[in-house]
Amino acid sequence: MNKKRHSLKDIARELNVSVTTVSFVLNGKGKEKKISDEVIKKIQDYTRKINYRPNLVAQSLRTGKTKILVFMVEDISNYFFSKIARIIEDIAYKEDYKVLFCSNENNDDRSRELINLFYERQVDGFIIIPSPGIKDSIQMLINNNIPVVLFDRYFDDLDTNYVVIDNENSTHHGTQHLLSRGYRNIGFITIDVDQIQMKGRLDGYLNAITENKLKSYVLKIPYSETGSKNGKKQIQQFLQKNPDLDAVFFSTNYLTQIGLEVLREDHPRKLQEMGIITFDDNDLFKIYSPSISAVAQPLKKIGKELMKIMMEMLQTDKGIKSTRHVVLDTKLIPRDSSLPKEEKLMHS
Amino acid sequence: MNKKRHSLKDIARELNVSVTTVSFVLNGKGKEKKISDEVIKKIQDYTRKINYRPNLVAQSLRTGKTKILVFMVEDISNYFFSKIARIIEDIAYKEDYKVLFCSNENNDDRSRELINLFYERQVDGFIIIPSPGIKDSIQMLINNNIPVVLFDRYFDDLDTNYVVIDNENSTHHGTQHLLSRGYRNIGFITIDVDQIQMKGRLDGYLNAITENKLKSYVLKIPYSETGSKNGKKQIQQFLQKNPDLDAVFFSTNYLTQIGLEVLREDHPRKLQEMGIITFDDNDLFKIYSPSISAVAQPLKKIGKELMKIMMEMLQTDKGIKSTRHVVLDTKLIPRDSSLPKEEKLMHS
Repeated sequence: MNKKRHSLKDIARELNVSVTTVSFVLNGKGKEKKISDEVIKKIQDYTRKINYRPNLVAQSLRTGKTKILVFMVEDISNYFFSKIARIIEDIAYKEDYKVLFCSNENNDDRSRELINLFYERQVDGFIIIPSPGIKDSIQMLINNNIPVVLFDRYFDDLDTNYVVIDNENSTHHGTQHLLSRGYRNIGFITIDVDQIQMKGRLDGYLNAITENKLKSYVLKIPYSETGSKNGKKQIQQFLQKNPDLDAVFFSTNYLTQIGLEVLREDHPRKLQEMGIITFDDNDLFKIYSPSISAVAQPLKKIGKELMKIMMEMLQTDKGIKSTRHVVLDTKLIPRDSSLPKEEKLMHS
Repeated sequence: MNKKRHSLKDIARELNVSVTTVSFVLNGKGKEKKISDEVIKKIQDYTRKINYRPNLVAQSLRTGKTKILVFMVEDISNYFFSKIARIIEDIAYKEDYKVLFCSNENNDDRSRELINLFYERQVDGFIIIPSPGIKDSIQMLINNNIPVVLFDRYFDDLDTNYVVIDNENSTHHGTQHLLSRGYRNIGFITIDVDQIQMKGRLDGYLNAITENKLKSYVLKIPYSETGSKNGKKQIQQFLQKNPDLDAVFFSTNYLTQIGLEVLREDHPRKLQEMGIITFDDNDLFKIYSPSISAVAQPLKKIGKELMKIMMEMLQTDKGIKSTRHVVLDTKLIPRDSSLPKEEKLMHS
């Protein structure tokens, strides 16, 4: 049952021509290489008859290209990452590239192992959300002239291509929005991690609070606990310990999900009365009751910019001389959860 | 900057040993092949010094294995598919396989093109949600002895491995649940496609309705319109044309999302009063107001069964003699959206 693949050699032997001739014809270079129409037709007819398929693995070995890109994120099943994955897949498809996805769980060991594995497999390029401590692995790729673009975050002291958003400005803007709607005691629930994007989000919030001479309320949850009951418990305790909070800003979409669950179960009244903003939008936030105001990342733009840089690198053999740094704006989408405080209290 | 890779030949030349000797040592067969400890150490020290990495593409060509699986779904950014993707990725990772994902949009041309492409790339196996008309492509893979497992649906007259759920029983059970809670005019909103899983879901609903001598209300929306305004419009019109509906069953999670949006915008009262059930759960459905009752697919079990069959095929060179058919049960999760009709009307 195991059909043997036909090699160029087999075809050449069968038709009594050279391997080079077969190769030229199959690559559409028959005329250019002055091979006779008769021989071209003979080779084309035969390969059609045997349903010949080129061995692309062998081709990869010759060209050094695999036409495969790696897309490494924290968790492919997260809304934000899976949406970007789809956008990248669609662009890659049009450019004749395929995408391997993997989830690094924001874990350094797993990230390093995956990068090494794919490096050995000679994929053509990497689009990576780096975990906190893998600067060395990224440096290794760059040293080996492998196209790599980081996104969502980068390393301050490593000169790489990256596509990020202006996190600090985004949360500053979001916090100002809550302040302008009459909220004064605004909590910020975020991830306890020493990464540039989360620092930016926290700074934006803290600056807005300080500028307005208000008190800050910050809860930091370890990333590893966001999927567990412990993460939920920490939000419960934070809300209990700070009964004067009149608004809360969640710094990621999965934190918002946990927060909404806690509010819904323990504080249904607060769910209606508090000001709520989420970082990262989700289709379901807009149909939630109340609909949840969001700082939305420009998903399409992020995907397009990532692939633009990647394709540029792939198409220039010598690599790009200077690295590209793209910083995109987010969009504040006000919904019912951040209606003016007075209006909310009147209705609830 | 472009570092040259070291080949086995380079190493052999440098150390003045044969390529075979280098190969045996690097594959941990030095002792077995009676190579002297001195030579083993010399080779190991040198490859460590030059940071030698095996060329896995060349290895693939020798072994015919790429250690890559393809996971093809309708849309990787859909909640259900991205969750299964993650489960499959985690299992594959432990078995030293990597996963290439792709979205076929339930489109035959795109599916065929992707299958051909990956077949040429010699991936080791395929896990596929087939679009309606690609029986021939699946047959081609089977004829060529490529491990393939279908999921979510299969072809009646093609003997393949598959992992599916009992769709008919699931919607029958869900419809019975609504009936037991006092709803009588139950609508069924589904996809207009001639595929076994959607036929099963529709049949389960229709059987429950017929058994109870009630009237059926069915809306079929073309898959291609579910992402557009037109899909939303059809649900709006369906609800307007059938004002006596007291419950609605959505046959997929993306239809539920559109439906909730329509109800929320146009019929906020109905959103609270109607009985609602969704096929496919979503984390956000449980924190929605009202929380949405769901027929939940066993995501982990589906992923595990798919990979169990796949690994079995990959580990048996000759392929499995008989095909595996796995049919899993779903779980009905009653939530507030299907509370007894009377109770709902009292509270609203």
